[in-house]
Amino acid sequence: MDTDFHHRLASVAGEIEAMLVTIFDVATDPPVPPRLMAAMRYAVLGGGKRLRPFLVFETARLLKGEEETALRAGAAIELIHAYSLVHDDLPSMDDDDLRRGKPTVHRAFDEATAVLVGDALQTLAFETLADPATSGDAAIRARLIALLARAAGAAGMAGGQMLDLEAEGRFAGGVPVDLDAGAIRQLQAMKTGALLAGAVEMGATIGRADAERYQALQAYGRALGAAFQIADDILDVEASSAELGKATGKDAGRGKGTLVGLWGVAQARVELGRLVAEALAPLAVFGSEADILRAAARFTAERRS
Amino acid sequence: MDTDFHHRLASVAGEIEAMLVTIFDVATDPPVPPRLMAAMRYAVLGGGKRLRPFLVFETARLLKGEEETALRAGAAIELIHAYSLVHDDLPSMDDDDLRRGKPTVHRAFDEATAVLVGDALQTLAFETLADPATSGDAAIRARLIALLARAAGAAGMAGGQMLDLEAEGRFAGGVPVDLDAGAIRQLQAMKTGALLAGAVEMGATIGRADAERYQALQAYGRALGAAFQIADDILDVEASSAELGKATGKDAGRGKGTLVGLWGVAQARVELGRLVAEALAPLAVFGSEADILRAAARFTAERRS
Repeated sequence: MDTDFHHRLASVAGEIEAMLVTIFDVATDPPVPPRLMAAMRYAVLGGGKRLRPFLVFETARLLKGEEETALRAGAAIELIHAYSLVHDDLPSMDDDDLRRGKPTVHRAFDEATAVLVGDALQTLAFETLADPATSGDAAIRARLIALLARAAGAAGMAGGQMLDLEAEGRFAGGVPVDLDAGAIRQLQAMKTGALLAGAVEMGATIGRADAERYQALQAYGRALGAAFQIADDILDVEASSAELGKATGKDAGRGKGTLVGLWGVAQARVELGRLVAEALAPLAVFGSEADILRAAARFTAERRS
Repeated sequence: MDTDFHHRLASVAGEIEAMLVTIFDVATDPPVPPRLMAAMRYAVLGGGKRLRPFLVFETARLLKGEEETALRAGAAIELIHAYSLVHDDLPSMDDDDLRRGKPTVHRAFDEATAVLVGDALQTLAFETLADPATSGDAAIRARLIALLARAAGAAGMAGGQMLDLEAEGRFAGGVPVDLDAGAIRQLQAMKTGALLAGAVEMGATIGRADAERYQALQAYGRALGAAFQIADDILDVEASSAELGKATGKDAGRGKGTLVGLWGVAQARVELGRLVAEALAPLAVFGSEADILRAAARFTAERRS
């Protein structure tokens, strides 16, 4: 089972990598300036577990949705994820020098290029979904765009990053704020949860899930998203920088609102177990065909990087 | 004619303002963090001529396209324009303190908020277009998204900003580059021209233009976009900061590649006149019904702010 899951995760990552290369290789008139194209590829290719595309792909596959649609939608959500990492790493944001074991985009290139790379990757994500190559059904394309925009926007990922900056008091005159568990859950549901849950919803849309199955998958995606962030926060405390390929132990030092910070690692692990169970429960309706999604939820909680 | 045009420009700007307020007022669950929402509204509302929405709206109206679709598409392109201004003003980009007579977003709020505001405005633009409220026809929605993404992305606006930064040598180790007229035209066609031409194409799409009319409008939009940038560069040399509500005379000091810098104001004016004629010619097919688009081309060249 576990070996099977890791094999599958790597296999889908390979297909997504190929799709991302295909998307970057599309000739445009006028051409993309070489420096911008090089920095966009640097930010996206050759790294990451591609967990969000995996969730799109496997959710769609469970429902026998179009594979090409799922791969292109997976690539689009990965472009959004990559843009958010580039901008979050900026000096004015989290000020990180290392990402996936490489210098961050603003270190490898420069800050202005990093701003533009993030902007252009976001645009490319929506351009990819709008393309008729993604699906012959324009209603599916529009629905995928709406889902991705909601997950990424001011009430989703970008809004969560805003709450995170506020929690840390990282403004002129700002002071760190002690958040309670409810506020931390809200922040994390937006900052990381929304895009992971959105990946599952995109897969369910590609598979044309009926209302019952859609809601079951939605519940799965939300619980998985919450579990992901707690696992991330535990890793931030316990794993080494070398294992993660990025700086660790930064969150606690900055007073970031995490459940690990509020409760300690032991209680956070209990909550993590509870969330994995919450993710698995709604999958009962699918029987053993959803085993790969079950494995994804466990992997999310147990990963070491 | 001229009075009529200014009346109409102000009237459409009012309708776009109302549409933007409507879009910002949509309740979300979870809500947008108040600081982010305040900064997004600050960046977008209460300023600007709304020229891009005007072009969407009047092009669609010429072809008897859906008014609501045109207003929502106009709001979406203005959100993209506003995001680009917020990011272009950042310290790592053009480093401007003043925009539309007010402090720029990173001065009024802070730099991290300005990055997030730009990101979230871009997302909101695509979310607005994907919404069924924009058009009952999903194929129209998807086509508008594709057009806007192409105009804004790495081979359009964002790519043009990259070329502009390169021309100025504004990187560590970078040196300003002397561009010839062809390279300047290319840079400007991307940086400003693409979004203006895209506005016209969006209007033509909403009006379901046939191939002949679409191509005529496309030619109009491209010439208008080129004229706009030359007029802007002349204004940068001749107008006062108070008239424009932003810093002026900066481009020459930085060695930016402009046709005014290359040729001087007098010859740039000749080119401007040629481009206005180039914009007007393809409109012949529409007769007097296109007078408002003719006035828009003249206004673009003759405006004082």
